[in-house]
Amino acid sequence: MNDLLEPLLAGNRRALSRAITLVESSRADHRQRAIALLSALPAGKALRIGLSGTPGVGKSTFIEAFGKMLTGQGLRVAVLAVDPSSTRSGGSILGDKTRMETLSRDPLAFIRPSPSQTQLGGVARRTRESIRLCDAAGFDVILVETVGVGQSETLVAEMTDIFVLLLAPAGGDELQGVKRGIMEIADLILINKADGELLTTARRTVADYAGALRLLRKRAGDPEGFPKALPVSAVTGDGLEKAWENIRYLADWRRENGHFATHRARQARHWFEAELRAGLLASLDRPEVRRRMERVGGQVAAGQAAPEQAALSFLDWLREHGAASGPEKA
Amino acid sequence: MNDLLEPLLAGNRRALSRAITLVESSRADHRQRAIALLSALPAGKALRIGLSGTPGVGKSTFIEAFGKMLTGQGLRVAVLAVDPSSTRSGGSILGDKTRMETLSRDPLAFIRPSPSQTQLGGVARRTRESIRLCDAAGFDVILVETVGVGQSETLVAEMTDIFVLLLAPAGGDELQGVKRGIMEIADLILINKADGELLTTARRTVADYAGALRLLRKRAGDPEGFPKALPVSAVTGDGLEKAWENIRYLADWRRENGHFATHRARQARHWFEAELRAGLLASLDRPEVRRRMERVGGQVAAGQAAPEQAALSFLDWLREHGAASGPEKA
Repeated sequence: MNDLLEPLLAGNRRALSRAITLVESSRADHRQRAIALLSALPAGKALRIGLSGTPGVGKSTFIEAFGKMLTGQGLRVAVLAVDPSSTRSGGSILGDKTRMETLSRDPLAFIRPSPSQTQLGGVARRTRESIRLCDAAGFDVILVETVGVGQSETLVAEMTDIFVLLLAPAGGDELQGVKRGIMEIADLILINKADGELLTTARRTVADYAGALRLLRKRAGDPEGFPKALPVSAVTGDGLEKAWENIRYLADWRRENGHFATHRARQARHWFEAELRAGLLASLDRPEVRRRMERVGGQVAAGQAAPEQAALSFLDWLREHGAASGPEKA
Repeated sequence: MNDLLEPLLAGNRRALSRAITLVESSRADHRQRAIALLSALPAGKALRIGLSGTPGVGKSTFIEAFGKMLTGQGLRVAVLAVDPSSTRSGGSILGDKTRMETLSRDPLAFIRPSPSQTQLGGVARRTRESIRLCDAAGFDVILVETVGVGQSETLVAEMTDIFVLLLAPAGGDELQGVKRGIMEIADLILINKADGELLTTARRTVADYAGALRLLRKRAGDPEGFPKALPVSAVTGDGLEKAWENIRYLADWRRENGHFATHRARQARHWFEAELRAGLLASLDRPEVRRRMERVGGQVAAGQAAPEQAALSFLDWLREHGAASGPEKA
C-alpha cells in the first residue's frame, strides 16, 4: 500500500524526505496516503527536544555544535523547524541548509527546512507528523527548533519531551523580557556565548535565571534542581556535554517515574482532538460548501437574514448533505 | 412566539434585560428562542462605539461623563462590556453599577455588566447579540467597553462602527507601550485627564500621538485628519463635546460615502462564518459524542490508534450518526 514504509523504517533518508513532503501536502489523495503511512508507523526510540531562542542568540551555531557533538557519539540527529512566519520573513529559519553547513553534510544528521506556510495549525500538523516519521526512521534525537514568536513555543512544547530555551548573556533587567509563559515551559535554560569577554556576564545571567526559576513552582514529576539554568558556548563547545547530560538525566528520571509515558499519551490525545476539530472545520472547504457560504454570506451582508439563523440553517443543510465530516474523499 | 419582542421594540428596559439574559444562556431551548428573537429584530439607528483603555486611565469616569453629556442631549445610551477575564478578576469591569452611579440611575441610560464567562468566543457572541438587542430597543448610542487585554480590542472593533482609545497623559517614551495593532484600529485617541497639573503633559501627549498617527497609513474611506488624537477631561468635562462632534462627523462621513454600510455588511458576514464554525465544533459537545471522544482518546493515548486515523474514523462516525451539525435539538 505504501512504498515509502519499508525504506523509511530502514532509515533511508530519501524515503524520509519524500514522506515529509507527503505529510506536508494538502492534496486529498496525498493526505489519505499520509494518514495510512502514519498509522503503520511503529513507535521509535527518539528523544524529542524542543529548542527556542530569540534571534541573535546563536541558535544555528548552537544546533550545529550540539548536533555534531551528538553525531560524534554515534547518535543519529534530525533537525526540524517550526516557523509560522516563514512566508513573511522569506523562510529565514532553516530556509536553506547553509545555516548549518557542517551538520547538514553529516551522514548521521538530517535537516529539514521549514515549509513556507502561514497557518500555525498547518505548521503544527506537519511538524508533529514529521517528528513521528523521523522517530520511525530510527533517529535517536529530534531537535525541533522554533523562533520566539507568538504561540510557537507552546506548540513545540506540546510535541516534544524536553524543552530547552537558549538565551544570550544579559543584564538582570533584561530578564523581564523573557515571557513568564516561556519560562514556565522550559526544562533547561542555556545561556549561550559563555566564552571570551562575555564569560562573566554569562555566568551572572545563569545565576539570575537560576534565581528566577527557583521562584517558579516546581513541576510535578521533575527531579530536584529542575528546571535548571546552565552556561554553554556553541563556539568553544564548553558546556555542551553537560547540557546533554542534564537532558538525558531529566529524560531518564521521567521515564523511570512514568511521567515520560504519561506526557506522550497526553500529547497523542491532544493531537487526536485537534485533528478532529480541524477535520470538522475542513468540511467548510469543499467547493460546493464554499459556494453556498458565499451566497448565504451575501444574503446576511445584505441584511436579508440574521447571522445566527443563517448559520443554523446552513448547519442543517450540511447535515442533510452529509458534508459535515472532514475533507472530500479522494 | 416570543413575548419579549414587542416590549423590547417599545424600548422596555426590563424586556431588554431579559432578552440579554436569554442570549447569554447556553441552554439549547434558550438558544433556540434567542435565535428566533434575533431573527425578528429590525435594524435600529444606534451608533456603535467601541471604547478601550488601560486600567487607571479613568474609563468609568469617562463613560459616566460622556454618557451623561449624551443623555443631556436627549440621547438614549447603552453601555456594554467585553471582559474575557471577568471570572478571574472577579468581574472587575462593570462588575456592579456603582462604578457609574449617576449614569446608571439615568432613565435614558442602560448599563449591563459583563457576564462571568471565560471564553472570549462566548463573550463575543453575547456582546454582538446584546448590541443588536439594544439597537432594536431604540438606543441612539451603544458604548462597548473593553479592557486592554489580548484580542478583546480587535473583537470589539469588529462589532462596532467607531473605535475610541482612551489613554492617560504620558511621556513620549511611553508611546511605545501602546501596541501598534491597537493604534491601527483606533479612529479616535482621547487623552484623558487633560486638566489641572496634567494639562500640559496631556497636550504634549496629544501631539505625540497625532504625530504617530500621521505615520500610520491613512485608511481608505476616512476623511482627512482621521484617525485623530484629542484631549479630554472626564472630571471637568472639557473636550467631551468636541470628541462627540468628531465621532458624529466621522460616522456621517462614512455613511455618506457608503463605507458605513459596507463595514456593517462585512461584520454581519464575518459573524455568520464565525457562528458556522462554532456550530460545527459544538457538535463535539453532545454527550454521546463526548463519551466516544473520551473512549477513542483513551485508545490513542494508549498507542492503540494513530491520532490522525482515529480522527478520520471519528469524523466518519459523526457523519453516519448525523451528529455533525450543531448543538443538540431541544
